Amino acid sequence: MGEFAISCGPQKLYTFILRTLVLIRNRRYNICMIVVLKPKTRPDVVEALVAQLEEKGFKIHLSRGEETTILGLIGDTSHTREESFLANDAVESVMRVTSPYKLAGRAFHPDNTVIRAGNAVLGRDSNAQLAVIAGPCSVESEEQIIAVAKAVKAAGAKILRGGAFKPRTSPYSFQGLGSEGMDLLLAAKKTSGLPVITELMSINQLDLFAGIDIIQIGARNMQNYDLLKEVGLSGKPVLLKRGLSSTVKEFLMSVEYILAAGNPHVILCERGIRTFDPYTRNTLDLSVIPWLQKETHLPVVVDPSHACGMSWMVPTLAKAAVAAGADGIMVEVHNNPATALCDGEQSLTPAAFAELMCKLAEYAKLEGRTL
Amino acid sequence: MGEFAISCGPQKLYTFILRTLVLIRNRRYNICMIVVLKPKTRPDVVEALVAQLEEKGFKIHLSRGEETTILGLIGDTSHTREESFLANDAVESVMRVTSPYKLAGRAFHPDNTVIRAGNAVLGRDSNAQLAVIAGPCSVESEEQIIAVAKAVKAAGAKILRGGAFKPRTSPYSFQGLGSEGMDLLLAAKKTSGLPVITELMSINQLDLFAGIDIIQIGARNMQNYDLLKEVGLSGKPVLLKRGLSSTVKEFLMSVEYILAAGNPHVILCERGIRTFDPYTRNTLDLSVIPWLQKETHLPVVVDPSHACGMSWMVPTLAKAAVAAGADGIMVEVHNNPATALCDGEQSLTPAAFAELMCKLAEYAKLEGRTL
Amino acid sequence: MGEFAISCGPQKLYTFILRTLVLIRNRRYNICMIVVLKPKTRPDVVEALVAQLEEKGFKIHLSRGEETTILGLIGDTSHTREESFLANDAVESVMRVTSPYKLAGRAFHPDNTVIRAGNAVLGRDSNAQLAVIAGPCSVESEEQIIAVAKAVKAAGAKILRGGAFKPRTSPYSFQGLGSEGMDLLLAAKKTSGLPVITELMSINQLDLFAGIDIIQIGARNMQNYDLLKEVGLSGKPVLLKRGLSSTVKEFLMSVEYILAAGNPHVILCERGIRTFDPYTRNTLDLSVIPWLQKETHLPVVVDPSHACGMSWMVPTLAKAAVAAGADGIMVEVHNNPATALCDGEQSLTPAAFAELMCKLAEYAKLEGRTL
Amino acid sequence: MGEFAISCGPQKLYTFILRTLVLIRNRRYNICMIVVLKPKTRPDVVEALVAQLEEKGFKIHLSRGEETTILGLIGDTSHTREESFLANDAVESVMRVTSPYKLAGRAFHPDNTVIRAGNAVLGRDSNAQLAVIAGPCSVESEEQIIAVAKAVKAAGAKILRGGAFKPRTSPYSFQGLGSEGMDLLLAAKKTSGLPVITELMSINQLDLFAGIDIIQIGARNMQNYDLLKEVGLSGKPVLLKRGLSSTVKEFLMSVEYILAAGNPHVILCERGIRTFDPYTRNTLDLSVIPWLQKETHLPVVVDPSHACGMSWMVPTLAKAAVAAGADGIMVEVHNNPATALCDGEQSLTPAAFAELMCKLAEYAKLEGRTL
Repeated sequence: MGEFAISCGPQKLYTFILRTLVLIRNRRYNICMIVVLKPKTRPDVVEALVAQLEEKGFKIHLSRGEETTILGLIGDTSHTREESFLANDAVESVMRVTSPYKLAGRAFHPDNTVIRAGNAVLGRDSNAQLAVIAGPCSVESEEQIIAVAKAVKAAGAKILRGGAFKPRTSPYSFQGLGSEGMDLLLAAKKTSGLPVITELMSINQLDLFAGIDIIQIGARNMQNYDLLKEVGLSGKPVLLKRGLSSTVKEFLMSVEYILAAGNPHVILCERGIRTFDPYTRNTLDLSVIPWLQKETHLPVVVDPSHACGMSWMVPTLAKAAVAAGADGIMVEVHNNPATALCDGEQSLTPAAFAELMCKLAEYAKLEGRTL
Repeated sequence: MGEFAISCGPQKLYTFILRTLVLIRNRRYNICMIVVLKPKTRPDVVEALVAQLEEKGFKIHLSRGEETTILGLIGDTSHTREESFLANDAVESVMRVTSPYKLAGRAFHPDNTVIRAGNAVLGRDSNAQLAVIAGPCSVESEEQIIAVAKAVKAAGAKILRGGAFKPRTSPYSFQGLGSEGMDLLLAAKKTSGLPVITELMSINQLDLFAGIDIIQIGARNMQNYDLLKEVGLSGKPVLLKRGLSSTVKEFLMSVEYILAAGNPHVILCERGIRTFDPYTRNTLDLSVIPWLQKETHLPVVVDPSHACGMSWMVPTLAKAAVAAGADGIMVEVHNNPATALCDGEQSLTPAAFAELMCKLAEYAKLEGRTL
Repeated sequence: MGEFAISCGPQKLYTFILRTLVLIRNRRYNICMIVVLKPKTRPDVVEALVAQLEEKGFKIHLSRGEETTILGLIGDTSHTREESFLANDAVESVMRVTSPYKLAGRAFHPDNTVIRAGNAVLGRDSNAQLAVIAGPCSVESEEQIIAVAKAVKAAGAKILRGGAFKPRTSPYSFQGLGSEGMDLLLAAKKTSGLPVITELMSINQLDLFAGIDIIQIGARNMQNYDLLKEVGLSGKPVLLKRGLSSTVKEFLMSVEYILAAGNPHVILCERGIRTFDPYTRNTLDLSVIPWLQKETHLPVVVDPSHACGMSWMVPTLAKAAVAAGADGIMVEVHNNPATALCDGEQSLTPAAFAELMCKLAEYAKLEGRTL
Repeated sequence: MGEFAISCGPQKLYTFILRTLVLIRNRRYNICMIVVLKPKTRPDVVEALVAQLEEKGFKIHLSRGEETTILGLIGDTSHTREESFLANDAVESVMRVTSPYKLAGRAFHPDNTVIRAGNAVLGRDSNAQLAVIAGPCSVESEEQIIAVAKAVKAAGAKILRGGAFKPRTSPYSFQGLGSEGMDLLLAAKKTSGLPVITELMSINQLDLFAGIDIIQIGARNMQNYDLLKEVGLSGKPVLLKRGLSSTVKEFLMSVEYILAAGNPHVILCERGIRTFDPYTRNTLDLSVIPWLQKETHLPVVVDPSHACGMSWMVPTLAKAAVAAGADGIMVEVHNNPATALCDGEQSLTPAAFAELMCKLAEYAKLEGRTL
């Protein structure tokens, strides 16, 4: 440092200090993205990149090492993908500093979001209800859905689930009863007094959802952005399932689509992810509960039925999900699983569900929750 | 065996032979699914299950061992998921014998399907063209798309790609020019004479696709079944991209949705799958080319640009895809990748594309193909 | 059936019945593997395959359909890989009926295995202890390991962990104190009275393990078969961690190596698997607890510290693991995580560990367990 | 900036400039790691962390924003894991700037490494040989290994492979002929004149490898660090297979173990990675070829046999690997695949191998290579 001071005359020192002060002033702003250039990038290439970024409205904090040059970007980087910098040959790597999800994140919304539907509460308010959503995979008949609705209500469920439009891997599988199924579900809502949730697969079906309390978007549609925008406009509570192989970041970006369209009522649902091991239908990722609750203000629900795909394992995973802090549990219940038209292998009988609810109540209590 | 014969009287032997003959007659039919029961399953449970399956229209081939009982199902199992049997406590495991994709498979369609658009041929006819699809990720302006169209045509591309509706992970990223982009793409089609392909994200946009030659369904919408049914009804050639984490079986079941809706013009596209290693954007799975060509009669295209996400790696992977037998290659080309609004990091310049085409021609020749 | 009977004369019928009786006799044995042949396989090819299999000692149950022929293999298939049949062009697919893990499975060992080390009990005996294993990732100094040993014992841990030989991704990372670390760990055992567990990385180190109560085999060595055989010969309790990307079947086959070498004292440990999402270090797979407890008789332990890699998340996952029925929990505790030479980011302080133990006791009670 | 200058008196300004100059001087060094602190981290916490890092020998480049503070670490970070910083509550995220693999990387070794064994050359020298390694999965008998050796040599293979010690998932599967197999392999080497490669599973077997030309370390042992150190000391050429679910970074860190022990003769081998889709045994990741060749100076070999596990697919993938720039190909060849004791389903017959070699020669030529 000493010899540095000696090597420049007063004029140079003055210029140098000014430049430094500018750097330092900039440093007082938030750096949002860090771009590391390749070793020995030529100064003119660095300058061209800086100029290009400044044109896009960023302020640049330049840190030039002997071999490595690093740019700190200051400004709104929420529209900018990290990868987009890599088109420039001089860029080695990029790191985002601020979160790309503005509305889902806790930074500007520290308090928990609470979503209400009938007597059900999703999210932690002063009563700290842990809401259980239960019902059959598919609505199959009036008898079936009403029988299940009564049974799950009696056992303490707060919301009735039942599919009318079913996303099936095979075009030859049962695709749900469609609008007739919607009518039956609404009849069950009326009879039981339970609010209802059912899956929306296409924007064309939205008109049929007027009486539905919570719209479910399935895992396969988690990145169906047109559908997300549409339910964002609807204003209705939306339960968004994490995609089969979606990172939590992608999951939250899909949530952001709904929030950005003006709908703040979003419930997150973990339902298992795809891994290399087929012993369970999917791999339930319970770590996502504490992670999402730390990163976002939105309620987090777990669906152990689709995760494992085996009814005997559902109660174990449901207990674990409650112990991991879930705000809600979604379970498949069918009055006769062996004859179910869809996913019978993962459905509980009403009796098994009632037994599970007793057990869950104990675990919920340890978490300061009520069922 | 001897003592067996001795141990039963004539009446029993008669019954026994009759029952055996029934078994043998059944055995002459195709067994479509094999259901293995748990060791020591009680006979009445076996009989109840057999009765239930017979009610559903299956013929049952029963093989009773000392400990294990096995059912062979005979009949149409294309509507039946393997997992659905597991709802029955007595079932240990299930194996499908016949393929669940009837229309995509080669069993009833041994000849290759050939799809034509303009001068482009996808699939292997007598001229064995290997069609290259090229163009920018997004249509950005008239100048851009027309410049790229001319450049890629000059280099030998047979089809022009360009996105007007863009599926983006973030709601804050550039979402494409929409209908204006469609107009520009059609203008480029007119100017260059190249047939065009662009992505459809929502059934609401279908009207805008009248002049488009091939509809692309993106990886994120591979299981958007309503969209698949709709393009199935449209009759237009469809390029379906494999989902990020879709097995080949799921991929073919999604193809089956389009075929079952009456549209035989389906092109399969491998664009990289999601794995544990982030060094490439996705992991290009070239083994899928020979596999799909063996299982189905449909053309298989590879998109190395989205797979690796790095322009410098695209030529290497494109060559490998040709050597692996691809029927077509889809490559991103941009006149100025560093300023691209989308995916610039994976786009080739027109010059790099022209160079690649020269190289690909040599590899195509070794495969008995022409570019 | 009727016309069948009519269409064959007496001699043919006799031969037919004889053949049928053979088939039926065979059917009384257990079918262990099912081999499905390709449609329209020529009879001579079928016969050649049958002959070849009979030569290998299998009895064959042949089921010939109009298009599909199926072989049921009867005999000991534990030495036979499913894939090995696929070398034969005529084979379409293969399914194993009986389990390939004979000693680990419950079939011949229905009762739970209980493993004792000092006062610690792993596995469910009449007292149903849930054993907590705690200690630092690495033994760093006498002060450190003794301080941690006392702290975790005071909080209720039953076993002390501490690494002397450390498997590190980089050759430049701290590799553990080696034999000096072993001495310090034994000193801590003496002072605290706790049994100790530490990782064995090489058969050359086995002599140093005389005073160690439980040998740990790490995830990276789960398929280091020479090491497995060696600890199988040692007779000491072994805690085997599931490999990063091991299926439960592979996990159990590695267990089988130890059991087959004559050592019945094996503890299974889930420590997170590798998936596509890097938000946690690994993805904790809690479904494996009920699955392994159903399939095997061996105790199952969960290590939430390595699974998530973040200390703040460890208590949540530990609670969930107890709720999912784990027989033990293994947690990293360090007296000063911020200065730890290894994995400090996932270590609890002694105070946080003591708090966790209070919480775990409540969850254990709900599971009928004592800490 | 103006008011900043005004708000501090001359003495403060002087101090400020001095400190700035220090920062700037430091900036001339390479920043090796970037540590981003959490928003609103208290200054005393920042200072404590800086002091701690300086004690460890790092120089720190501090960049303080209004909300975010960023530390640039200058010094040797090759011993430091990114995650280790996360034990400090104040740390938000960490990014490594310089590569953690010093010896494997091209930074200090820009020229390609060339490894010779007999007439075989791995790596690109002036003759640019593409070396083909061929032989059976297991050595089974003298007749078998000598017949195969002659056949593959005649077809143009440069190296003979054959396993004597076999890592098998099941303890009940054929484990190789052991030392007898080593003798037979050496006999085949003598007869054919081909150099030989075989797998080492345990440091105890090393004495038997005196006559072996290349030691193979299998995928399951890629992180068996004691074995890596030992072959590092041996000085013999080592072919290291990528682990089933190893990232390329982990792969290169394992390479680094061998190099750091003093052995520069390392060959990298891609053999397929584990993904969610079981249609191939593993998923061949050909992108790794250009990536490894860019990052390292070591030769890269591809094993399509283990990757796909189906002999009919091997030639297609071998061609693709050559087109992707592989320096060598390793293929399983067996004189009678249907009776092979191991992996027969993925072995080529000698005739199929000879046909493949003719085809590969054409592809190699396009890459400027000779077989």
